[in-house]
Amino acid sequence: MILEILIQASKNVFHTVKDLIGTEEGSLKIAQGAGGDISRKIDLVAEEAVLNTIKLSNFFPTVIGEECGMIHGKDHNEKNNGFLIMDAIDGTTNAVRGIPFCCCSLAYASDFCLSSVIDAVVLDLFTGDIYSASKGKGSFFNNKKINVRNIDLSTVKSVGDLRSIDSVIGTNVSGITYDMIKELTTILSYSNHVRHFGANALELCYFAKGYMDAYIDIRGKIRSTDMAAGYLIAKEAGGKLFDRNGEELDSNLDVRTRLSFYAVSQEKLFNLIKM
Amino acid sequence: MILEILIQASKNVFHTVKDLIGTEEGSLKIAQGAGGDISRKIDLVAEEAVLNTIKLSNFFPTVIGEECGMIHGKDHNEKNNGFLIMDAIDGTTNAVRGIPFCCCSLAYASDFCLSSVIDAVVLDLFTGDIYSASKGKGSFFNNKKINVRNIDLSTVKSVGDLRSIDSVIGTNVSGITYDMIKELTTILSYSNHVRHFGANALELCYFAKGYMDAYIDIRGKIRSTDMAAGYLIAKEAGGKLFDRNGEELDSNLDVRTRLSFYAVSQEKLFNLIKM
Repeated sequence: MILEILIQASKNVFHTVKDLIGTEEGSLKIAQGAGGDISRKIDLVAEEAVLNTIKLSNFFPTVIGEECGMIHGKDHNEKNNGFLIMDAIDGTTNAVRGIPFCCCSLAYASDFCLSSVIDAVVLDLFTGDIYSASKGKGSFFNNKKINVRNIDLSTVKSVGDLRSIDSVIGTNVSGITYDMIKELTTILSYSNHVRHFGANALELCYFAKGYMDAYIDIRGKIRSTDMAAGYLIAKEAGGKLFDRNGEELDSNLDVRTRLSFYAVSQEKLFNLIKM
Repeated sequence: MILEILIQASKNVFHTVKDLIGTEEGSLKIAQGAGGDISRKIDLVAEEAVLNTIKLSNFFPTVIGEECGMIHGKDHNEKNNGFLIMDAIDGTTNAVRGIPFCCCSLAYASDFCLSSVIDAVVLDLFTGDIYSASKGKGSFFNNKKINVRNIDLSTVKSVGDLRSIDSVIGTNVSGITYDMIKELTTILSYSNHVRHFGANALELCYFAKGYMDAYIDIRGKIRSTDMAAGYLIAKEAGGKLFDRNGEELDSNLDVRTRLSFYAVSQEKLFNLIKM
């Protein structure tokens, strides 16, 4: 039921922004968003489309949004209606330039942490394709079940052997410091195929669909709003998500929180990368 | 006339491989190609589509192909008919996984060097979009003229100021060594938006279309077959291409040659990056 509302909201974003993508008008800088980035017209119009949809659905969660910050949403009975975590446009830089890789990312959590996300939708704003997941029920691409890639690591004894298995590793090196580069050099040097498309939530879906064997961001810059939907879709597709210390990834949903993570198709891959 | 043949050949590749993309069958490893990579079925079928097209067009250049190596092509009059430089599938790893970013790259050169490329076509194998250029006549996206992004660098005094202008920098860090990372750390650390999609020729077209302000590959791994078409399309769109020493990029077309390059929308950007 809540998943249906999230899907409807993402479709409304798709229809609302399609004529703004790649335009001067869409890229107009309006204000500084709660997440710290400059909000552009296309971001604000997209958030409004989400907020209108949930209102029309008589659904009143607390909303956590990249632009709007936190909007408390208890209903008339003062009941806790959970949290809607929204990045109405993830990959805004791509969207305003017309680079065909950006998405709408919406998640619903029963409590104020990543691990309590129970419904998630990521809609590809160029193709209209929908990735979705509900906790315990698997992940789907246009209603077809998806799983992380089942890569054979039986012959892989060290990170150097990764070259032989033709793995595809996604990672974001934008604004990366010298110290962080050192942490990544091993995996970069042994990967024949490194990728970065420019929208965290959709990249986690690419990982969930088996396009990439791992997706890594160790810059400490990812927000809960960039992460929440992709987190559940990746996990329900069989992915493992760790923080830099090797603990299972979790965090609060505060819009000011910043994350680093390793998403891998199997735990052994994480151990190899961190060796 | 030759441009038309290249366009027809790329369209034939598009129709020939569309049912092989993202399939087990397409990814079958057949042999080691002349360029050093493993040739997959999809690569070989695509090259055959190109070779058939030029034969049917009574066009007999010397062909330089990633898989087939060099096929001498003087016609009955022993006339030099120039060189067709072909990467029938650029981005094979993406193609076999179904990641929607790969292309067919075809160029025609009057002589045996990059700077004598006079016609070029890159066809996006997921969308069918066609990038093309002829020397001195500009670059086109589906017949509409394109230009590199006209970014305002007047306020930019050092590479650190790049952050303020929201530049998008493409670079390939697959298999990069520690020494190369050091050369890139400055530009990576000051770029808010680094991208790598996984097909050199199409990335140069993204650069030519203004999606990226620079596209850099300093790994010394790019072949003339990966480069020839994108080189002309980038240049005819107003881009500047340099080697690592700051000389204008050029090279022979030998399939064993390996290149590094900086493609920038204006020379000042190269000077900032190399500072």
